[in-house]
Amino acid sequence: MSPNRSETLSWHGGSDGHLRLIDQTKLPVNLVTIDCRDVETIWEAIKMLRVRGAPAIGIAAAYGVCIGLQKPVDSVAALRQQLSDVTDYLATSRPTAVNLFWALDRMKRRAGTLPAASSVQQFRDALLAEAEQIHAEDRHVCHAIGHHGAQLLQPGTGVLTHCNAGGLATSEYGTALSVFFTAQDQGKPLHVWVDETRPLLQGARLTAWELMQRGIEATLICDNMAAQVMREGKIQAVITGADRVAANGDAANKIGTYSVAVLAKAHRIPFYIAAPISTFDLSIDSGDAIPIEQRDSREITHGFGRQTAPDGAVVYNPAFDVTPAELIEAIITERGVVRPVNRDTIANMIGNDEHVMR
Amino acid sequence: MSPNRSETLSWHGGSDGHLRLIDQTKLPVNLVTIDCRDVETIWEAIKMLRVRGAPAIGIAAAYGVCIGLQKPVDSVAALRQQLSDVTDYLATSRPTAVNLFWALDRMKRRAGTLPAASSVQQFRDALLAEAEQIHAEDRHVCHAIGHHGAQLLQPGTGVLTHCNAGGLATSEYGTALSVFFTAQDQGKPLHVWVDETRPLLQGARLTAWELMQRGIEATLICDNMAAQVMREGKIQAVITGADRVAANGDAANKIGTYSVAVLAKAHRIPFYIAAPISTFDLSIDSGDAIPIEQRDSREITHGFGRQTAPDGAVVYNPAFDVTPAELIEAIITERGVVRPVNRDTIANMIGNDEHVMR
Repeated sequence: MSPNRSETLSWHGGSDGHLRLIDQTKLPVNLVTIDCRDVETIWEAIKMLRVRGAPAIGIAAAYGVCIGLQKPVDSVAALRQQLSDVTDYLATSRPTAVNLFWALDRMKRRAGTLPAASSVQQFRDALLAEAEQIHAEDRHVCHAIGHHGAQLLQPGTGVLTHCNAGGLATSEYGTALSVFFTAQDQGKPLHVWVDETRPLLQGARLTAWELMQRGIEATLICDNMAAQVMREGKIQAVITGADRVAANGDAANKIGTYSVAVLAKAHRIPFYIAAPISTFDLSIDSGDAIPIEQRDSREITHGFGRQTAPDGAVVYNPAFDVTPAELIEAIITERGVVRPVNRDTIANMIGNDEHVMR
Repeated sequence: MSPNRSETLSWHGGSDGHLRLIDQTKLPVNLVTIDCRDVETIWEAIKMLRVRGAPAIGIAAAYGVCIGLQKPVDSVAALRQQLSDVTDYLATSRPTAVNLFWALDRMKRRAGTLPAASSVQQFRDALLAEAEQIHAEDRHVCHAIGHHGAQLLQPGTGVLTHCNAGGLATSEYGTALSVFFTAQDQGKPLHVWVDETRPLLQGARLTAWELMQRGIEATLICDNMAAQVMREGKIQAVITGADRVAANGDAANKIGTYSVAVLAKAHRIPFYIAAPISTFDLSIDSGDAIPIEQRDSREITHGFGRQTAPDGAVVYNPAFDVTPAELIEAIITERGVVRPVNRDTIANMIGNDEHVMR
C-alpha cells in the first residue's frame, strides 16, 4: 500500500499492527516512509525529528505505547509493567515536547480506568482505541479550524504563511495550512506565499512541499521578501500557527512571525493565527511572561551544510517571538473565530475547557 | 608583505606593478589574496565575483587597464591599440556593472587627453596615476560618508545593517560600514546587528567578517529576527547602503531593505541610507520607475550546495526592493547629510554635479 500523499502518520492493522510515518528529515527531496514495528524505531523517529510538530509527536507516542505492549506476556500485570516501561522510555525521546507527555499520560490514565478483570487482549485493544481516539480528535480539530478559517478568505486571495503549521505537524490538515486545504476543497482558489523560515527552513522544506502535494498554487520567498510582496499588493491575508497563546491573546510562534505581523499591519493586511484551543495557556497572563529560548548558533552559521559566517561570529538565535494581541486580527480555533482578540473574547471562547492550562 | 586586514584592493609597484585583491569568494572561512599580473586574472576575478561591489569593480578594472598596458611595445600607437583591446576585453567580464564601464571610459578619456608626443613610459605612468586617482577618490568618498554619518550616532548605539555596504565593496571603508568604522576610530563604541541577508548571505559572509576584523562588536541574526531585536529595545538606528537613489529620494537596495525600513518605522527607529553622490540618478523620477530584476530561483532552493525546497517549487526572487523616501530619515553622502529626504533637499545637495545622471 502506498502512503497517502499527506498522511504524516497512519496505523496499519489491529493491536498487533504497526505505525507508518513520513520521514520528514528526507523532505522535500524524497518522500520516504518508515514502518515502525518496535518502540526503539519510534523513539528514534521522535528524537531525530523524523516526526515533528506537537500534535504529531503526541500521536506517534500514543501509538508507540501500543507497539510497546505487543511483546508476549502471560498476564495483565506484566502488561502494566510493560506500559510503565514503554512510557518512561518514550518520555526520554524529546524531553521538551509538552504533547509527548500529555499523550503518554493520557494512555496511562486510560489503562488506569480498565477493569481489573480485563484480558491481555482487551487491555491492548482499549489502549489502541485510545491512541486512535487521540488521532481522530486531532483530525477533527484540524478540519474544524480549516472550516472556520476558510470562511475568512475570498476566492483568489493571496495569503502569506510562515513556518510549517501543516499536516506534517499534525494528523492530517494542520492548522494554518488546514485553512488553505479546506478553501481548496470548497473550490476557492488561493495563492499561497511561503516564507522559507530561517534558520531551519520549515517553510521551504515542508510547507512548500505540502502545498505542492495538494496542487495549491504556492510561491516560495525568502523571509526578507514578504514586505516587498505585500507592497506589490499580492497579499490580502496572513495566516500562521502558534505554539502558545497567553490569556490576553499575545501569541508565541516561530521566530519571524512577529516581523510578519508588523509588516502586515503596515500594509493594512489582516494577520490571523490558526491554533487549537489546546494552544491557549491561561496560566500565562501576557506574552511578556513567555521566556524566549535561544538555539544553537550553528543553525545560522552553518545552516546549509556549509560554513557561511566567520569563525567565532556572535549569533542571536531566538527560537520564537511573541506577537502582541493588538497585531492579531483574529484567532481561528476549532470552536470558531476569536475576534477581536482580547482577554474577554478568549475567556468566552474557551469557557471551562479541561484541556486548557490556567 | 602581508595584506592589510581590510584592503580589498592594493596596487604594488610602479606602472610595471601588480594588483593584489582579496578573493571574496573564499570569505568568511579563509582570507586569500590574489596577485593579478595579467589581464585575464583580473577579468576572471570580476567575472567570478572574487571582487564585487560597484566601486571595487571600477577600481579593479582601472588597474586592469594598467596591467594590460605592460606588454612590450615599440610605440605609443601600439600602446593605444593595447588600451582599446584591454578595455573591450574587460568590459565583457560583468556586462551589467555600470561602474565597470564608467571606470574603463574614464581611463580611455585620460588617454585621449595625453599629448601626442608622450613617450610609452609617460603614457603608462599617466594611466596608472588615473587609476590611483579613481582609487583615492573612492577612499575619500568613503571616509567623508563615515565622518558625516558618525555624527548621527551616540556612543553605545545599537545599530542594524543589511547586506554588505562595507570596505569589501569599495576601496576601503565602504558606505554604511564606514559610519561604524569611523565611529570606532572616534572612540564611540557601537553594537552592530547584522542581517545575514538571504539569499546570498552577504551580511553573514562579508559584513560580519569586516566588523570582526576591526574588532567592532557585532551580532549576526537571520533577517526575520530584526523585528524581535528592535522590540527588545536593542536597536537605536538602522543604516544600509543603496544601489540607486531616485530624484524624489526613493532608494533601491538589496532585497530586504524595504522590510527593515518598515520595521524601523513601526518601532520609531530612524532608518538611514549611506550612499555616495554617484548613487543618485536624477533621471529617475521616483522608485516606481526602477524595474526590479529577478534572479535565479536556485539561489533560494539550493542555497548553499544543498537542495532545501521541493523539485519544481515556484520561487519569487527579486534582487532588490525600493524603500520610499518617507521611510528614510536621512541620506548620508560624502558632502553631508540630506535631511529630510525629498526632491528639494536632494537637488540642493547635488547641485550641478557632473557625475550624477539626470
